[in-house]
Amino acid sequence: MTELSAILGIAENNLDDSRDRLFDLLRIKSISTDPAYAGDCRKAAQFCEDMLTELGFDASVRDTAGHPMVVAHGGPTNGKPHVLFYGHYDVQPPDPLDLWETPPFEPRMAKGQAGQDIIVARGAADDKGQLMTFVEACRAWIAANGELPVRVTILFEGEEESGSPSLERFLEENSAELSVDLALVCDTNMYDRGKPAVTTMLRGMLLDEVIVTAPKMDLHSGYYGGAARNPIRILSRIISDLHDDHGGVTLDGFYDGVPEIDDAVRQQWQGLDFDEGAFLDEIGLKIPAGESGRSILEQIWSRPTCDVNGIIGGYTGEGTKTVIPSKASAKVSFRLVGDQDPGKIRNAFRAHVQTRLPSDCSVEFIAHGANPAISFETTGKWMQAARAALADEYNRDAVLMGCGGSIPVVGSFRDMLGMDSLLIGFGLIDDRIHSPNEKYDLDSFKGGIRSWIRILEAISEA
Amino acid sequence: MTELSAILGIAENNLDDSRDRLFDLLRIKSISTDPAYAGDCRKAAQFCEDMLTELGFDASVRDTAGHPMVVAHGGPTNGKPHVLFYGHYDVQPPDPLDLWETPPFEPRMAKGQAGQDIIVARGAADDKGQLMTFVEACRAWIAANGELPVRVTILFEGEEESGSPSLERFLEENSAELSVDLALVCDTNMYDRGKPAVTTMLRGMLLDEVIVTAPKMDLHSGYYGGAARNPIRILSRIISDLHDDHGGVTLDGFYDGVPEIDDAVRQQWQGLDFDEGAFLDEIGLKIPAGESGRSILEQIWSRPTCDVNGIIGGYTGEGTKTVIPSKASAKVSFRLVGDQDPGKIRNAFRAHVQTRLPSDCSVEFIAHGANPAISFETTGKWMQAARAALADEYNRDAVLMGCGGSIPVVGSFRDMLGMDSLLIGFGLIDDRIHSPNEKYDLDSFKGGIRSWIRILEAISEA
Repeated sequence: MTELSAILGIAENNLDDSRDRLFDLLRIKSISTDPAYAGDCRKAAQFCEDMLTELGFDASVRDTAGHPMVVAHGGPTNGKPHVLFYGHYDVQPPDPLDLWETPPFEPRMAKGQAGQDIIVARGAADDKGQLMTFVEACRAWIAANGELPVRVTILFEGEEESGSPSLERFLEENSAELSVDLALVCDTNMYDRGKPAVTTMLRGMLLDEVIVTAPKMDLHSGYYGGAARNPIRILSRIISDLHDDHGGVTLDGFYDGVPEIDDAVRQQWQGLDFDEGAFLDEIGLKIPAGESGRSILEQIWSRPTCDVNGIIGGYTGEGTKTVIPSKASAKVSFRLVGDQDPGKIRNAFRAHVQTRLPSDCSVEFIAHGANPAISFETTGKWMQAARAALADEYNRDAVLMGCGGSIPVVGSFRDMLGMDSLLIGFGLIDDRIHSPNEKYDLDSFKGGIRSWIRILEAISEA
Repeated sequence: MTELSAILGIAENNLDDSRDRLFDLLRIKSISTDPAYAGDCRKAAQFCEDMLTELGFDASVRDTAGHPMVVAHGGPTNGKPHVLFYGHYDVQPPDPLDLWETPPFEPRMAKGQAGQDIIVARGAADDKGQLMTFVEACRAWIAANGELPVRVTILFEGEEESGSPSLERFLEENSAELSVDLALVCDTNMYDRGKPAVTTMLRGMLLDEVIVTAPKMDLHSGYYGGAARNPIRILSRIISDLHDDHGGVTLDGFYDGVPEIDDAVRQQWQGLDFDEGAFLDEIGLKIPAGESGRSILEQIWSRPTCDVNGIIGGYTGEGTKTVIPSKASAKVSFRLVGDQDPGKIRNAFRAHVQTRLPSDCSVEFIAHGANPAISFETTGKWMQAARAALADEYNRDAVLMGCGGSIPVVGSFRDMLGMDSLLIGFGLIDDRIHSPNEKYDLDSFKGGIRSWIRILEAISEA
C-alpha cells in the first residue's frame, strides 16, 4: 500500500482541481425549500452521481417523494469496516440577496477577516464544501493506490435544509443496503481555527405549543378588567414558573437521566480556555443565563434547557387597545441531554400548565417535534482511530465537543439502521451558514481532505 | 308654566316624529375614523345645526383641525342654572359588514330578544339615539311652554370615536363660552332595563408599553440555549410578578389613594342582586378573577386593576423556529380609582420592571395615555334633583353606578372648564355598541326624552 505521505501529497498537488470541482457544484442552485429550484436539485444530484461514477463508484440518483438521494458504493470488500459517508447537496435559500457582496451562486476566492483564503458562496460550508472533502479524499486514495482502503457507501441527501421529509422512509426502504458498520457525518464544526474536533454529544429537542383561552371572546378591559381572567397573565405565570432562581428547570423529573460529563471530558473542556466573556460579548450580553455553577460550555453542550421561542396574545399593533384577549399562546422548546425522555418531558410540561390553569379556563396543546439526545462513547476503537488521525494532521488532540443543536439523521442512523456515527467536520463558527456571504476557509477544505485521507486509513487499521 | 304632565304628554304624542328625526340622523354615515367619510361627518354636523336652529337655538357648526363641533345656545337667562349638554354625532365604523342583518345606515324598527321594540342602526345607541333624547326633550318643553326652563348650551362632538383629538384645544379656545354651571353627559347606560342610573365614578387609566432587549440579535436556541438570556422569560417574570396570589397588584404604593366606597353606596350595590354567575357566564367564565373578597361590581366599578392588553416576541407563525429572540414587548394598562396618581404609578411600574431586568439587558418604555379617575359627590343638589327626577319617571331609585371605562371629556370639563358633570344615559349593556346590529330600545329613547324633560325641570327648581 502506498505511503500515507504520498496520498496526502497527491491531494495537496491537486487542490486547485478539487476546488474547481467544488466551484462547479456551488454554481448549481440546489435550494431545496423552494419548488422553483427542483430542477436544480436534481442537477446537483446528477453532478454527484457523475463525479462518483467517474471515481469508480457504483453510483445512482434515487427518486423519493421529494428531491432525490444519491447513493454510491465503492472500495474493496476486504473484511475491514464498511463505512457510510453522509452529506447533503441542498442549500439554504440565499435571501436576503441584497446583503451578499457578490452573487451567492457565483463562487469566488476572497480574503477572510484573519487574512486567510476563503471560498465564498451559498453552500460553501453547509454542506457542499464539507461533502467534497470526503469525495476528494477518496479521489486521492484511488489516484495513489488504485483503490480505497475500506468499503465505502456514500449517501447524499437533497432535503436536509427542508427538514428531511423523505429521509426516514428512504432509510427504511433501503436499510439492508445502507446498514453498514459506521456512519461518517461531515456537517459539524472544528472547535476553532486549527483545532480539530469530534462532536460526541448532540442535544435532543422537544417542542410544544400552548394556547390558553380565558374569556370566550375579546373583552373591553374597562368593562371587564378586574373580573375577567387574562390569558396573557396566566401564560406569563406558566412561563415564569418554568425556571427556579438558579436557572434550573422546575418540571417534575426534568433532570432524570441527565448525566454529569465524565472527568476526562471535563478536564479537556477546562483546558480549552474558552473565553466566556468574548462568547457573550458577540451577542451583546455579559452574564451567563443558565444554571448557576455551570460553565457556558456545559450550559450549551451538556446541560438541558427550556426556552420560549415565541409568544403572542392580544393587541400587538401600534399604540394601544384596551382589550382583555380571549387567547394567548407560546411556543416552548426543551434541549435534552443524556437519557432524558422527550415523551415524559412533554407530559411534565403539560402537567405544569394544567396545574397553573384556573379551572374555568381551557388550554390546547400542539405537539411539535421530539427527539432524544445522542451521545457516543469516546473510547470506542473507531473514535480512537479518528482522534489519532486528526491529532496527526493538526498536531494537537481533537476536542470532544458537545453540540447544542440537533442533527436528526444521526438519530435515524442509530434507531433505524443500528449504526453509530462519527461526527467530524471542518466548518468554523464564523462561516455564516444560513446567512449572506457564507464562506468556507480554504484551510478547512484542505485540512478536511487531508483528515479524511488519514481517517480512512486509521479505520482500515483499527 | 305648563304642567309637567302636559309636556310629557306632548313628547309622548310626538314620539313617532322624534323617531323619524333620529332615523334621518342615523342615515348619515358619520364615521369619524375614516377620512373617506369626512363629508358625511360635516353633513351630520349641519343636520344638527339646522335642527337646533329650527328649535330656536343660536346654533353653529364650528371648524376644528378635524371634524367640526356643533355649538348651540338657547333658553332664558333667568338666574337659574346654565347647563351644557354634551353628546357626539360621529359613530364607529360598521365593520364587519357581513355580520349586519340589514345595512347599518338604513335604520329600521325590529323586535329585541325580550320582545321589545328596538331601533337598529350604527349609532342607534352610541350616541345618536342618546343625544336625540335631549334634543327631543327640549323640543317638548318649547312646544308646551314656548321656552326652556333653564339656559342650555349644547355641544356635539364629531371625533369621540377617534380619540377626540380636537376637543381639548376647542374647550381651551372657547372656555368662556362653554364654562357654565353643570354639564349633562348622555353617553352611559342604565343599570338594567327599567332601572335608571347615574354614573358617579369613572375609572382612570394608565397605559405603558415595555420592550425588553436581551441578546442584540435573534439567536439559534441550539447554539445559545442555556447561556443566553431570553427576553420572553424576563417579560413573563415581570408580568407574573405584577399580581400577588390574592389578585392584588404588587407595585409599590399602588393602593395609595384608593378609597373604600361609602356605606350608602355599598348597601345600594348589595341591594341590586347583581347576578355574578350570569355576568361571567356571558363571557365563558365562572370564577371572579380580581381581588379576593371583593364583589364583581366592586372589581369592575370601584377597584383598580392591572391588565396586559398585548404581548409579542419571537416566532409566532405556523410550526416552530428554534430562536431565542432579541426582543419581547408587552402593552400594560392600569384602571385607576379615587386619588391614584397616574404619574406615580407609571414610575412604580417602570421601577418594577427595572428591578427584574438582568443588568446586561435593556428596556425601552413607550408612554401611552394617562388620566386619573373621576368621581362625583352623590349628595350635591343637582345630583339629588336628577335622582329625584329619574325616580319619578321609573318609580324606583336611580342606581349610583361606577363605570369601569373612561369618558375623557368628563375629565376635560372638570380640569379645563371647572365644571362637574352629571352622567345619565339610557343605553343597555346588550345594545351592541361598536358591534354589528347595534340597537337602542324604543323604551330607552322614550324614557330618555321623558327623563330629560323631568331633569330640566328639577334642575330649574334646585
